Amino acid sequence: MPATSTRRQAVNLAHKFSLFSEQWSQKIIAEMNDYQFKLARLQGEFIWHTHADTDEAFIVVEGELRIEFRDGEVTLRTGEMYVVPKGREHKPVAEREVKLLLVEPRGTPNTGDQGGARTTPGDVWI
Amino acid sequence: MPATSTRRQAVNLAHKFSLFSEQWSQKIIAEMNDYQFKLARLQGEFIWHTHADTDEAFIVVEGELRIEFRDGEVTLRTGEMYVVPKGREHKPVAEREVKLLLVEPRGTPNTGDQGGARTTPGDVWI
Repeated sequence: MPATSTRRQAVNLAHKFSLFSEQWSQKIIAEMNDYQFKLARLQGEFIWHTHADTDEAFIVVEGELRIEFRDGEVTLRTGEMYVVPKGREHKPVAEREVKLLLVEPRGTPNTGDQGGARTTPGDVWI
Repeated sequence: MPATSTRRQAVNLAHKFSLFSEQWSQKIIAEMNDYQFKLARLQGEFIWHTHADTDEAFIVVEGELRIEFRDGEVTLRTGEMYVVPKGREHKPVAEREVKLLLVEPRGTPNTGDQGGARTTPGDVWI
């Protein structure tokens, strides 16, 4: 599928969210150079993981996300963002479903260096 | 000023917008690797310009933005985004004030290759 940057059409986040309901599955909605904008619905606890080579930007479109670190945590609500520095072990947690916009380099695996059962395909456009 | 990624605090977009009122002035709110998230208030017409080396992501936080191209245009409303491809000449236009979140590489000048009077400092954090 072509990158959004070749289309002459706005990408509507709410519309894109309406196209999928599964949780913990990242959907690409746009590319900027070698970075991607991805939507995700999260609920529950993810696994502890680290992205050794890249920062990772979280923007909460709707809901609340807690990002736990080994020595603390940060809570993001609708309209808030946070950038997890590369190499920082973290665990996303959402008590109720949260809608997220993620920005990170193309090919960044959702489970970072951990791999395993929670790893999902990172090349799905919506 | 330190990058947001070293702070353990959410960045609230509405709060950040409340800290400035000037238009056509980009304010950095977060960094991700060598990219920056910047807020801007736009109203009126900007100049035609091109970023030869990078795509540029526009996300409308509130309002409406028209991005004109030499052969067309795209209109973004609240909750919509668009990535202008590198090398594509464009002119942002807003009939009323629009609040934007921009994502692009650190050091990308607002006027691209044009320079001139509308160029503003690109290193201002808020």
